Amino acid sequence: MPASSNLCAGRGSCVPVSWPNEHRAAVDFVAAVYRPERDEAGLETIEKSADRVLEETGIRFLDDPQTIDILKQAGGVATGDVVRLDGAELRRIIRRDAPAKFLLRGRNAAQDTPIGVSAAPVFAPIYGAPNVVLDNGARRAGSRQIYGELVAAAHAAPGLTNTGQMICVMEDVSEDRRPLEILLAHLSRSDKPFMGSIASSAAAEAVIDLTTAAVRRPASAGECNLLHLINTTPPLTYWPNPLKCLRTIALKGEASMVSSYMMMGATSPVTVAGALVQGYAEVLAGLALSQLWCPGAPVVMGILAYPFDMRRMLPDFGDPASQLVQFHAAGLGRRLGVPVRGDGAITSAKIDDAQSGAEGGRVLSAAMASGASFILHASGWLEQGCTVSFAKFRRDAAALSELGPGKPADLPMPLDRGIEAEIRGRLARS
Amino acid sequence: MPASSNLCAGRGSCVPVSWPNEHRAAVDFVAAVYRPERDEAGLETIEKSADRVLEETGIRFLDDPQTIDILKQAGGVATGDVVRLDGAELRRIIRRDAPAKFLLRGRNAAQDTPIGVSAAPVFAPIYGAPNVVLDNGARRAGSRQIYGELVAAAHAAPGLTNTGQMICVMEDVSEDRRPLEILLAHLSRSDKPFMGSIASSAAAEAVIDLTTAAVRRPASAGECNLLHLINTTPPLTYWPNPLKCLRTIALKGEASMVSSYMMMGATSPVTVAGALVQGYAEVLAGLALSQLWCPGAPVVMGILAYPFDMRRMLPDFGDPASQLVQFHAAGLGRRLGVPVRGDGAITSAKIDDAQSGAEGGRVLSAAMASGASFILHASGWLEQGCTVSFAKFRRDAAALSELGPGKPADLPMPLDRGIEAEIRGRLARS
Repeated sequence: MPASSNLCAGRGSCVPVSWPNEHRAAVDFVAAVYRPERDEAGLETIEKSADRVLEETGIRFLDDPQTIDILKQAGGVATGDVVRLDGAELRRIIRRDAPAKFLLRGRNAAQDTPIGVSAAPVFAPIYGAPNVVLDNGARRAGSRQIYGELVAAAHAAPGLTNTGQMICVMEDVSEDRRPLEILLAHLSRSDKPFMGSIASSAAAEAVIDLTTAAVRRPASAGECNLLHLINTTPPLTYWPNPLKCLRTIALKGEASMVSSYMMMGATSPVTVAGALVQGYAEVLAGLALSQLWCPGAPVVMGILAYPFDMRRMLPDFGDPASQLVQFHAAGLGRRLGVPVRGDGAITSAKIDDAQSGAEGGRVLSAAMASGASFILHASGWLEQGCTVSFAKFRRDAAALSELGPGKPADLPMPLDRGIEAEIRGRLARS
Repeated sequence: MPASSNLCAGRGSCVPVSWPNEHRAAVDFVAAVYRPERDEAGLETIEKSADRVLEETGIRFLDDPQTIDILKQAGGVATGDVVRLDGAELRRIIRRDAPAKFLLRGRNAAQDTPIGVSAAPVFAPIYGAPNVVLDNGARRAGSRQIYGELVAAAHAAPGLTNTGQMICVMEDVSEDRRPLEILLAHLSRSDKPFMGSIASSAAAEAVIDLTTAAVRRPASAGECNLLHLINTTPPLTYWPNPLKCLRTIALKGEASMVSSYMMMGATSPVTVAGALVQGYAEVLAGLALSQLWCPGAPVVMGILAYPFDMRRMLPDFGDPASQLVQFHAAGLGRRLGVPVRGDGAITSAKIDDAQSGAEGGRVLSAAMASGASFILHASGWLEQGCTVSFAKFRRDAAALSELGPGKPADLPMPLDRGIEAEIRGRLARS
């Protein structure tokens, strides 16, 4: 694990490089090996340090005046696009309004999954791979046809209880058409719950409306149909599109997984404690925003950090430091009363070898042991996530079937013809 | 994870096959995914169920009247070699007398390692492999020369803070000479702490005396020079040799790691809860025995269980069920106030491939996350432990160096010539 360091790369709005004594306590807390019996004082130290970052440095919200306005109503002090915030107030809002548990629904009610305290973890495939390795070993760019096969594989896998989103990139489909093509694949090849589109707020809204129509059951409080990946852009920044999507999604009552995905030493401090402080400050802002837009909107919290290898200029997936981040992130989420995200069998390995197994096994085990509720990238990941491999997809899913509540899959329920015609019609007109 | 089952194989003195309602609560507790925030009530259920096994079924202590006599003084009721015991009384003895932490010392004081609460975990190599895979891929029976090289490799590895015991079997040395040959290898090729011999109580005593002379520092309370692996023979049985070794070791003030290593579905119930109940009953008896022989003798508790694959007639190392056993075993140990054992990167794989990485990564991660203090089989394990591989030995050790407090090794301090001459003299006379 990297020693304590003042390293702070990034674009200006970063954690101060000279750490005061109270931050030293945070470093000491996480520098030791993780001990489950440890009391809550250490986590409180992380929270206090994050509060200071929020108050003194603030978070940058790029090009989205509505976000800045609503944060001002919650006591934020804006200077340009940077808003300094009161961490204790953000926690109060989240603890008061965000649900500890919600139901993510599929077209088939038997596939619905509760997400949160005491529910089994939900596993979703890799998200965002541009490349695919086929079973014959051939390497291809992602395509519409392959995407459909990946959704079908996720549906058929008892270990996967969510078919995810953007399992691979559809390189043969123009960007503006991808959200609906992806939606059609998830709706027609599976009846399990899946994740929503964040291509744009318009795409998010269209996919939400069409999915709601396909699920065909009115949602009560604590129920929704789509979970969306809302990423911060570390350090301490939100880009415009995630902010607009977060608002649209919350106002629709759908779920957002607000995640800070950090490269320790590149986009966050290199230490576990520093990454936790920064990541917690970031997601606290996003989680509170969702509750300001719509009190009670379902959320999941993700603080994930992997050391950045300066020799290869790539993250080290599976490094033990990332496991410590996961354990403490889960503790911070529990204190906040929201479900927590983990990562699955992710790795830096190029092929599915001993390195792949060891790194993936470590990350997944840490996520499971931390009590994470939603585990993304749970199957198929190779090469820093640049590739989805069909063989590894199946191997990962087979292992997951021992860990979760998954059951053997029937063929998916047929998709309502009206919905399918509507999506195909929109695609034809676009 | 296997579903609840009444399966109970074994030699008669097994957990009752018809589970009463209170045992059902134990099954429910562990059937769910492990959650660190869970309260202590579930662990108490395991303890109570084990108490009932101890009281109604008892433990078989083969051919060692002294053990049965001292257990009678502690309230045990003997029928032949089966002693029915009061679990609450055993816990009282252990909690009163067993140290929560002790110092395991090497010839070099800089290599001493604390074992117990808030200390970093100690990593020791594979224990008991009959076969070796050399770097050129050749497969050999273990030998005296190879043994020396393995100890040297363990000494050179920053990740290993203990050089273990019987890393491979010395097939070219007669059984009666092995304890001293093994001792000579550990003393001459390393100055790190290592583990004691349990070949016989005479061998244990000789190795303890010679090691004490080699360490050359008088031991204060809470300090010792050797940790010994004392195995139960599940289900619910102790064989004579471990009982005699346990007594000898405790009376010398040296440390015993009392372990139940179960094959779920073969030598223990197939469920996680059932294995925990049986394993806890077994080790509770051994830990209390050590304190009856010598109050304050250092101990480590191990409850480990791997599902037994009926198709291959081999255990499934790395199966998720074993992780749940580890987590709950650690909780039981914490409640007892003694350090807990974990396993390292063990696997059923024949070569160091993705299966090896994933299974090993899972087991090691669970041990680390559970807060285990002493992690055996941490490097070199392949093929259900039938083989120690030099390549995997180094790969495992490299990964461990990121997890523990290990530091780059100097050459070992030279072994005192008098001690070496004494050991060589005894070997010449044997």
